[in-house]
Amino acid sequence: MVLLASLLAFAQGPARHVNQQRLWATLEKLSEFGRPAGAGFEGGVTRVGFSEEDLAARGWLMQQMREAGLEVRVDPAGNIFGKRAGSEKFPTILFGSHIDSVPRGGNFDGDVGSLGALEVMRALRDGKIATRHPLEIVIWTNEEGHHFGRGLLGSSAAAGLLSADVLERRDEEGKTLADWLRRYGQDPARLADARIAPGALAAYLELHIEQGGVLDESKIQIGVVQGIVGIHWWTCTASGFANHAGTTPMNRRQDALAAAARAALAVREEVRAESGRQVGTIGYVRVEPGARNIIPGRVEFPVELRDLDAAKVLRIWARIEKRFAEIAKEENVKLDCVPLQADEPALTDTAIQNDIRAAARAAGYSTLDLPSGAGHDAQQIAKLAPIGMIFVPSRGGISHSPREYSAPADVANGAEVLYRTILLLDERLNRKP
Amino acid sequence: MVLLASLLAFAQGPARHVNQQRLWATLEKLSEFGRPAGAGFEGGVTRVGFSEEDLAARGWLMQQMREAGLEVRVDPAGNIFGKRAGSEKFPTILFGSHIDSVPRGGNFDGDVGSLGALEVMRALRDGKIATRHPLEIVIWTNEEGHHFGRGLLGSSAAAGLLSADVLERRDEEGKTLADWLRRYGQDPARLADARIAPGALAAYLELHIEQGGVLDESKIQIGVVQGIVGIHWWTCTASGFANHAGTTPMNRRQDALAAAARAALAVREEVRAESGRQVGTIGYVRVEPGARNIIPGRVEFPVELRDLDAAKVLRIWARIEKRFAEIAKEENVKLDCVPLQADEPALTDTAIQNDIRAAARAAGYSTLDLPSGAGHDAQQIAKLAPIGMIFVPSRGGISHSPREYSAPADVANGAEVLYRTILLLDERLNRKP
Repeated sequence: MVLLASLLAFAQGPARHVNQQRLWATLEKLSEFGRPAGAGFEGGVTRVGFSEEDLAARGWLMQQMREAGLEVRVDPAGNIFGKRAGSEKFPTILFGSHIDSVPRGGNFDGDVGSLGALEVMRALRDGKIATRHPLEIVIWTNEEGHHFGRGLLGSSAAAGLLSADVLERRDEEGKTLADWLRRYGQDPARLADARIAPGALAAYLELHIEQGGVLDESKIQIGVVQGIVGIHWWTCTASGFANHAGTTPMNRRQDALAAAARAALAVREEVRAESGRQVGTIGYVRVEPGARNIIPGRVEFPVELRDLDAAKVLRIWARIEKRFAEIAKEENVKLDCVPLQADEPALTDTAIQNDIRAAARAAGYSTLDLPSGAGHDAQQIAKLAPIGMIFVPSRGGISHSPREYSAPADVANGAEVLYRTILLLDERLNRKP
Repeated sequence: MVLLASLLAFAQGPARHVNQQRLWATLEKLSEFGRPAGAGFEGGVTRVGFSEEDLAARGWLMQQMREAGLEVRVDPAGNIFGKRAGSEKFPTILFGSHIDSVPRGGNFDGDVGSLGALEVMRALRDGKIATRHPLEIVIWTNEEGHHFGRGLLGSSAAAGLLSADVLERRDEEGKTLADWLRRYGQDPARLADARIAPGALAAYLELHIEQGGVLDESKIQIGVVQGIVGIHWWTCTASGFANHAGTTPMNRRQDALAAAARAALAVREEVRAESGRQVGTIGYVRVEPGARNIIPGRVEFPVELRDLDAAKVLRIWARIEKRFAEIAKEENVKLDCVPLQADEPALTDTAIQNDIRAAARAAGYSTLDLPSGAGHDAQQIAKLAPIGMIFVPSRGGISHSPREYSAPADVANGAEVLYRTILLLDERLNRKP
């Protein structure tokens, strides 16, 4: 079915509107900001939010935006906008991503969506295409959350989701967000003005690498994102009794690590016990006292569960809690968990999903509906406007690593779908029925 | 049978030769060296080897030894000896323990054997008892191994087991053993002279708290130690692939922590699979990268196995290795272990075990044969002479903790058995048949 549709679309579809070579060259140019000494494009990048490298890259990118004919401004949260006027007084169609990276990250996460958006604007100008809606690129500030632990900083400000104390919170360098915003030339006192007014946006689109291996493995060109999964975090503690590893018989131990090992495996079993794409992870274990010759007395470990369906997460968690209680009893150890954070899932707009699917089909690309297991700025903007997300394949599903890679054709396919989706949206939205 | 023998022995046995009150008062006095501010005897002690507190306690103890009529000397390893002459030119019967503690340790580990030995000397003087063999107390240097990771320092020097480079190895403060020995007033260049000549010792005895809960739980007064278990250490590494916890499906993970959790439980199962007193411990887990939202890519954990029978340890290890290979295959993770250290078991002399049993019976105390799961200076001296060890109960099996406790009567019982065993040895050894 997909194949037939693709062939038909390819037969009827025009060549690409976006320029693959120009887009790839721009990605390579951006990669120079934060490139490890002596490395090439393949060596990845370290361009964490608010760093010198980030600041330099932003300056360069604003220049590219101006050269593409966009009207550039920076909001008080440091988010960069580049506007192209529409023919009507309609709300804006916004699209973009971020250019900050994790330490020792890759050149695709965020960059593909940011420069894909720029390429769309360039292609529209090349084709002398006018739209009814104003179109605007956005480059969100500090998506990866360096310095402040929690990411999505710029989009959270735009959605009015930042708490009042955020400006004075200090990072590991002792600097506050206010300090960093001043370095960005912004007035921290105006941070609340970064909020985007209700009704100002007609829609928000984000092109991104999948960061998982589903598209790559199944050789599908475009992922139509159903939504961004909810993330639930708990911190759990197993409390037994630290004792001498030589003198305490096996049947008299209250070994916190044995209990934690059983708990970690129980989490995996319960996550796997239902069909679906839910995931569960134990990312670390902290053992006290932590010596070879002492039976562990206390072990801390986190539990993370993610799914598009919050009710499913809570159902799995209820089973995990039951298993933990059994393990605690059998191991003669206390096993307690406290919830740390729960981000609700953010669903994408089904009409926009249809537009993305139609755009891909028209361009001749295969599609697959899938959730985003990673968080994205789009989830914050979902509070303001209908959102849509387009995924392109990540080789081997690797991300947040110098080994992160998406092929030039895949990147250009994504930008082409973004281009076409924008035009479909411009047609469909604000039409009298 | 034990009960009957005890009753008989009690009926026929004389009162104690050692003075329980004097011994307890001396223990309390020693506890002042390194006592936490504001705490009493119950607050435990921090008197790590080579510390100011250790140095002060040694000075005080040497004074007590002199007042007990002993001839005191310190060897080049800092071991303190206190001699009482014998009537014959026989090799020495040596007995003692250590007075250094772990950080935040208790007032019984080492102290009971050291001051129990002093009490024996005091009681012999009180009773005007002459022996054929010279008797000598020893207080070994740095048994707990603070500063240099590996303990049993003084006894290792006496047994000639220190490697040539030990003097220049630096501790976490940047000081060498040579530096510390100088602080003890010793000439590091003479360290090799601390070696005790072959044939110089007729026997070595050590009184110690059990540090386990076997005697306490079974209400037995005296443990006759069969030997000091061998300790085998491995360091194992699970190598999977660190990846994004949100975007990597459950069936595509190479989770090093899941493999390590299964490995830890497999170790416990294989240790428990045979009857006996062998123990196995996983004391810590180090996870990389170690974040809530990243699937663990690399996990390091140690495996420790202990038993009196080295062949049994190796048999269990062979089964563990087989299990690890299965787990590695199923989890698609590498799982490799390297041996770090293997201390052979040190068996006590069976004739001395008989002497200890006879001494306890004569004093009216119940006895149990058991291994020592912890290491002791006696294991090094086993290379030089036949050894024997006497255990007294540890409340709740707790040690290396301020909660470490042995009751005054139990401590005095141990010293009484030491007293009687010395006299039995003095009778039995160097007798023409």
